[in-house]
Amino acid sequence: MTEQYKVFEKELSGTKQGNPYQDIWLKAVFQNNAEETEVNGFYCGDGRYKVRFMPTRPGTWKAVTKSNDPMLDRIELVCECMSAREGNHGRVLRRDEVFAPCDLSEEDRFHFSYEDGTRFQPFGTTCYAWINQPETVQEQTLQTLKNSCFNKVRMCIFPKFYTYNTENPSCYAFEGNEEEGFDFSRFNPVFWEKLEKRIRQLDELGIQADIILLHPYDKWGFARMGRETDAFYLKYAVDRLCHYKNVWWSMANEFDLLPWKSVEDWEFYARTVMCRDCYGHLRSIHNCIQMYDHNRPWITHASIQRVDIYKTAESVTEWRKTYHKPIVVDECAYEGNINYGWGNITGEEMTRRFWEGCIRGGYLSHGEVYVQHEQIWWAHGGRLHGTCPERIAFLKEIMEDVPDGAAPLRLTPDNHLDNWDVPCLCKEDDNSYFLYYFGFFKPAFRTYKLAKGCAYTIELIDTWNMTINKLPGIYAGDIRIDLPERQYMAVRMKKVN
Amino acid sequence: MTEQYKVFEKELSGTKQGNPYQDIWLKAVFQNNAEETEVNGFYCGDGRYKVRFMPTRPGTWKAVTKSNDPMLDRIELVCECMSAREGNHGRVLRRDEVFAPCDLSEEDRFHFSYEDGTRFQPFGTTCYAWINQPETVQEQTLQTLKNSCFNKVRMCIFPKFYTYNTENPSCYAFEGNEEEGFDFSRFNPVFWEKLEKRIRQLDELGIQADIILLHPYDKWGFARMGRETDAFYLKYAVDRLCHYKNVWWSMANEFDLLPWKSVEDWEFYARTVMCRDCYGHLRSIHNCIQMYDHNRPWITHASIQRVDIYKTAESVTEWRKTYHKPIVVDECAYEGNINYGWGNITGEEMTRRFWEGCIRGGYLSHGEVYVQHEQIWWAHGGRLHGTCPERIAFLKEIMEDVPDGAAPLRLTPDNHLDNWDVPCLCKEDDNSYFLYYFGFFKPAFRTYKLAKGCAYTIELIDTWNMTINKLPGIYAGDIRIDLPERQYMAVRMKKVN
Repeated sequence: MTEQYKVFEKELSGTKQGNPYQDIWLKAVFQNNAEETEVNGFYCGDGRYKVRFMPTRPGTWKAVTKSNDPMLDRIELVCECMSAREGNHGRVLRRDEVFAPCDLSEEDRFHFSYEDGTRFQPFGTTCYAWINQPETVQEQTLQTLKNSCFNKVRMCIFPKFYTYNTENPSCYAFEGNEEEGFDFSRFNPVFWEKLEKRIRQLDELGIQADIILLHPYDKWGFARMGRETDAFYLKYAVDRLCHYKNVWWSMANEFDLLPWKSVEDWEFYARTVMCRDCYGHLRSIHNCIQMYDHNRPWITHASIQRVDIYKTAESVTEWRKTYHKPIVVDECAYEGNINYGWGNITGEEMTRRFWEGCIRGGYLSHGEVYVQHEQIWWAHGGRLHGTCPERIAFLKEIMEDVPDGAAPLRLTPDNHLDNWDVPCLCKEDDNSYFLYYFGFFKPAFRTYKLAKGCAYTIELIDTWNMTINKLPGIYAGDIRIDLPERQYMAVRMKKVN
Repeated sequence: MTEQYKVFEKELSGTKQGNPYQDIWLKAVFQNNAEETEVNGFYCGDGRYKVRFMPTRPGTWKAVTKSNDPMLDRIELVCECMSAREGNHGRVLRRDEVFAPCDLSEEDRFHFSYEDGTRFQPFGTTCYAWINQPETVQEQTLQTLKNSCFNKVRMCIFPKFYTYNTENPSCYAFEGNEEEGFDFSRFNPVFWEKLEKRIRQLDELGIQADIILLHPYDKWGFARMGRETDAFYLKYAVDRLCHYKNVWWSMANEFDLLPWKSVEDWEFYARTVMCRDCYGHLRSIHNCIQMYDHNRPWITHASIQRVDIYKTAESVTEWRKTYHKPIVVDECAYEGNINYGWGNITGEEMTRRFWEGCIRGGYLSHGEVYVQHEQIWWAHGGRLHGTCPERIAFLKEIMEDVPDGAAPLRLTPDNHLDNWDVPCLCKEDDNSYFLYYFGFFKPAFRTYKLAKGCAYTIELIDTWNMTINKLPGIYAGDIRIDLPERQYMAVRMKKVN
């Protein structure tokens, strides 16, 4: 019995002659009443093949395989599927993929939802090479993630070669090793099984695996395989991994640091992934300096590295206007003390960037780079040492409490006229909710003209000290709110009538 | 005997019939060998007229007046001029107005110089309406300025009407008062004498008076006088004030909040000022939201209010490219706790903005808005309460030590490759000087490849705690500098060989 949105898997035996990775194809079309899904099976060494399938609704799904290997052809498969258990909400998609057009507002295009309709707000972190660390470190990483608020991890398939990242991993996506070279025509099933185990474990923790398919930090040759081998690899990766509901596809980290791959290459790679992914997982591509054109139709959400070292999450407002898609600032610099400018901001500044981006209707990813530790979270995983993760957890709670349909204030309305300098998340249709964030400003007070006929409770939120102070009484009309002259304050107003 | 660059003044008697402000003109051409300067005299009430003149070189200057009033016509004037005393450097001009083209570098167009060749780096502050406060407050303001590092003050001629600024002043530029109305055809000599006294006192303190000629914060009608009256007023102001060497002309504060005045008006006003100002004092115009086109030829330097509330002094780099003139960020927000976003940043952030702007080859002005005090420095003057003025004084000392010809690093050179994230002021021609500023970044260390054949002393500068820590020894080649993992650090390298 397979649970809805989980993976049905059937192992089959076929040829081990020649190079089955290249020579053999295997398909199965799963049917449940009128619905059908065609999946690609894959070779996993030693004459073993697998067909995987993620049923999206309960019931009996039946398939008959097709293959150019007679041993794999015309095999009947049956997947009995039970309803999703509590906490299993299926894939994360864009809200406008989940809801009917009549149920959507203009704001929904900027947000995500699980396929069962549950809201999903990504609060990601970054552990690029965590699956390439020693097993004990990987276990530690999972433990840390379990105790954190993070619900998405950016992670690479290929290992990372860069400062603080010079060790070879125990195995690779392809057969071979650095000393003897790699066989770019044969995959290493041991590696893929380890990877899949980690993806499953993340799923059990409710964490999305934002899988980075290609990246530039390389000494082994994985960044320069050429178009044909890239496509061969991408197909295999998707055939194996797309059945996990928590997978997102990041075509590349810092695609622009791979200048030998053209935009046409990336577009071809994206089509390749889409053709093989029968579930339509979320797709994006991440920049270093040069932004990719996130208006391309295949891109479901903009995965952005800030392109200005001073103005980062504030640009969510502009990027929303430019791309009309969910904005995920997957790198807005990291908390830490590394020598490079991308990884030595304070916890205060990192937390501030998260708030700025969220209030503006975007999403942020965390990262941490304290170089005095043996493992540095951003690449190795391990333990967290920074000051911002608990503040991000606090923010996440605040954001979970924001009513559906709340959006960044579009223009300063008359009744909030003096607040041109402060971003606000609010429900403008019924004036029921306002969340102002003051960032590094530290006013002694603020004045508001509250909407006519509305009365509000008001809370002062200290986003750094993580306190919520509900002011006594109910507020209406023209009001003045005294503030503590500290940075990082927010004001939340909720309508009571 | 008049000192060079100081004011020669001769009072004459003429008609008091009619309206001499409108009806009578008075000129004098001062001659010294081949040099001549034509000045406009002015009426100062009660049949009194004055001719003022600032001699720019020692010797005997002679003039004969011309006027349409026979009592004022053909009067011989003699100004005996002695050389400037120590500390008297004359007007501040743009460097390319002071030095011969053969002595100028590309960088000089971005900087100022006194006319005797002494470098002038503006470190301004803002006391818009200080001359409209009670006399005791004005005296306090002068005392505060005397004990501060500020060498420029932005100040208005017309009083300010705005939050915290609702009192009427004791007198106005025009005859009249709020109750009985103003006579926009007659000036009030009492006001102008008071103003001139303050300008002279600022000059004695070595402070430039950045005179704001028009501004929008008004309830008396001075912001809506119309083109003819504006020009009448501007001529009178320039005729009286241009003889003070420390005068700068700011055509307006926040010109874009006076939308009933067109760009054509401002261009006409600028021509009016230039026609009457025989000394060519510095000229600019200050924006609120919409930047004026500082490429206009009459504008000697860009007087900018930051147009982004997050990225402020960092934009000096871009503005230099756009305007090719000195960049003076006359408002980058103010330290304080007022309810408005322009005036409630921390002393740390204000200091950071000063450093960012200076390292990028620009200049900043200070302002302070702590609303709990009876006088708020930004408008009233009085006392300073903030934390950044002493840090600005520290920065000023650092900047005075920067060698002539130092400029912002144009592109990251190979030998400073890892420092893309850090602005640097340096002398690139001989690699003799580098000043890196880390802002809110807090690296544990940095690496540098020092220029071949060069050896350096290295100092760690804590810009907030105002300490300079000289590292032991001499540095050459590839080096690593450990840093204290604090924000607001700078590294200064000086070549020793």
